Amino acid sequence: MTFELKILGSASATPVLARHPTAQVLTADATNYLIDCGEGTQWRMLEHRVRPHHLRAVFISHLHGDHYFGLFGLLGTMHLQGRTQPLRIVGPPGLDEVLVAQARASDMHLGFTLEFTPVNTEIHAVVYEDEHLTVATLPMRHRIPCAGYLFTERPRRANLLKDKLPAGLTPAQLARLAQGEDLEADDQQPGLRHADVAGPAPAPRRYAFFSDTLYTPALADLIRGVDLLYHEATFLDEHRERAGQTHHSTARQAAQLAEAAGVKRLLLGHFSSRYKSLEPVLLEAQAVFPTAELALEGLTVNL
Amino acid sequence: MTFELKILGSASATPVLARHPTAQVLTADATNYLIDCGEGTQWRMLEHRVRPHHLRAVFISHLHGDHYFGLFGLLGTMHLQGRTQPLRIVGPPGLDEVLVAQARASDMHLGFTLEFTPVNTEIHAVVYEDEHLTVATLPMRHRIPCAGYLFTERPRRANLLKDKLPAGLTPAQLARLAQGEDLEADDQQPGLRHADVAGPAPAPRRYAFFSDTLYTPALADLIRGVDLLYHEATFLDEHRERAGQTHHSTARQAAQLAEAAGVKRLLLGHFSSRYKSLEPVLLEAQAVFPTAELALEGLTVNL
Repeated sequence: MTFELKILGSASATPVLARHPTAQVLTADATNYLIDCGEGTQWRMLEHRVRPHHLRAVFISHLHGDHYFGLFGLLGTMHLQGRTQPLRIVGPPGLDEVLVAQARASDMHLGFTLEFTPVNTEIHAVVYEDEHLTVATLPMRHRIPCAGYLFTERPRRANLLKDKLPAGLTPAQLARLAQGEDLEADDQQPGLRHADVAGPAPAPRRYAFFSDTLYTPALADLIRGVDLLYHEATFLDEHRERAGQTHHSTARQAAQLAEAAGVKRLLLGHFSSRYKSLEPVLLEAQAVFPTAELALEGLTVNL
Repeated sequence: MTFELKILGSASATPVLARHPTAQVLTADATNYLIDCGEGTQWRMLEHRVRPHHLRAVFISHLHGDHYFGLFGLLGTMHLQGRTQPLRIVGPPGLDEVLVAQARASDMHLGFTLEFTPVNTEIHAVVYEDEHLTVATLPMRHRIPCAGYLFTERPRRANLLKDKLPAGLTPAQLARLAQGEDLEADDQQPGLRHADVAGPAPAPRRYAFFSDTLYTPALADLIRGVDLLYHEATFLDEHRERAGQTHHSTARQAAQLAEAAGVKRLLLGHFSSRYKSLEPVLLEAQAVFPTAELALEGLTVNL
């Protein structure tokens, strides 16, 4: 089963040529989820062959333009492409009002239903569930209400251990065991418990998305040991005062949080346009978390 | 004095890689005016070195997303770049409400004043004037209220004709004549009228922007003889039924209008994403108006 993250954009608010504002696609079991949707995201989806009408849900962190101004155009394109299945949008309260104002001005009547889940950005709570994922908010600290998101795969089934399987099982019985069911005893044979013939279930994979936030060490507790953390790293540590004023983090702080939380991998993003080269950003983080990587456009991380 | 049009985008609503939705910059006497502002326009401005804080005014034709979804991000960028001078936005009623809803959601407080001129899209009327330009609406016929715009240069001063100038004029007197003033008679010399020593004033240059519209021959009367016409040409004539249904024009119709109006140059734009090659669009128009051109991204027309 796929559990893969693709970076569509990782620039911050001031536009820079050949870089793009925040947008990511998480693919869980062949289903796509969009995380933030900066201006131009639909062109990035074209570029990276992510089909708009295959999106199951969109998660918006906050209502600064570089994180959601691409949503209006994307919805219009889905409509033009004939989408009919509902789209779930999860985000801060107020997003729905902007969408409604926009649609009214354009006299746009979407051919599909928008289902909006307003989130409380102050707490850690489950806000979305389907057959592939559970998603919980992570309370960011930014200038306006802002949610990070923790994506947790649904529990995966344990594989059957061949050397524990008795001989003579029919294909139907094997299939039931593989589905996690127990076989009851009958005239022909004794019962067989799934737990007795299966290995341990693999741990559900987890991805934590830290959108714009002041460095907040306490958040480490909520994401301990995740497989992947994306943490904004708008500034270098030499500009940490500016980071504090604007409620952003530095590359070093992102790495410190990753280190404290014991995450397996760290991606850095949301780079300020002032840094023409991102090498100093990467090196600063790697001094604390040696395997840190830059979330550059097109990067794909298969977990 | 410059009077120059630069094309930033000419695609229609469905996004296509390497093409961009409608946006143009008109430069009159070193002052920039933005005409429509599809999603991603601020990146096109970066690409073509048009500085956002040098924009004097923005003209929006209508509230379909491919003509204005780039405006929110552009305003935010002007704010981040420290703009303080007011910006005039001219467009259909309702645009201001969307801007306000957006700004409220983002808690965005611009460092400059937005001055909004709502236009009546049903009539031909002057809606903007400054020292460089007069701008009048052109009533388009589209699915929602939609204005084209006619940009007319302020009258230009006639040049002095050297062989009509008497000998012995001082530099100060020459300067006054060059400014269009008459010299009054005094003890030293008889008077001299500007009109007697100057050639005819060059005709003010004019640019007509026909945004999305059903083919409307009657509009030719409003733009007779303009130096440049941009006319949407969403479809080929073989799809003219579809053009009618969606309130768009075909390349042939665009050329017919240009021909009927006796315009000097014709640019075609707003091409449907269904046409992978635009050569048939161009050839169809050139069969009627032989010098028709495609308004491709980056094209600059110096009038």
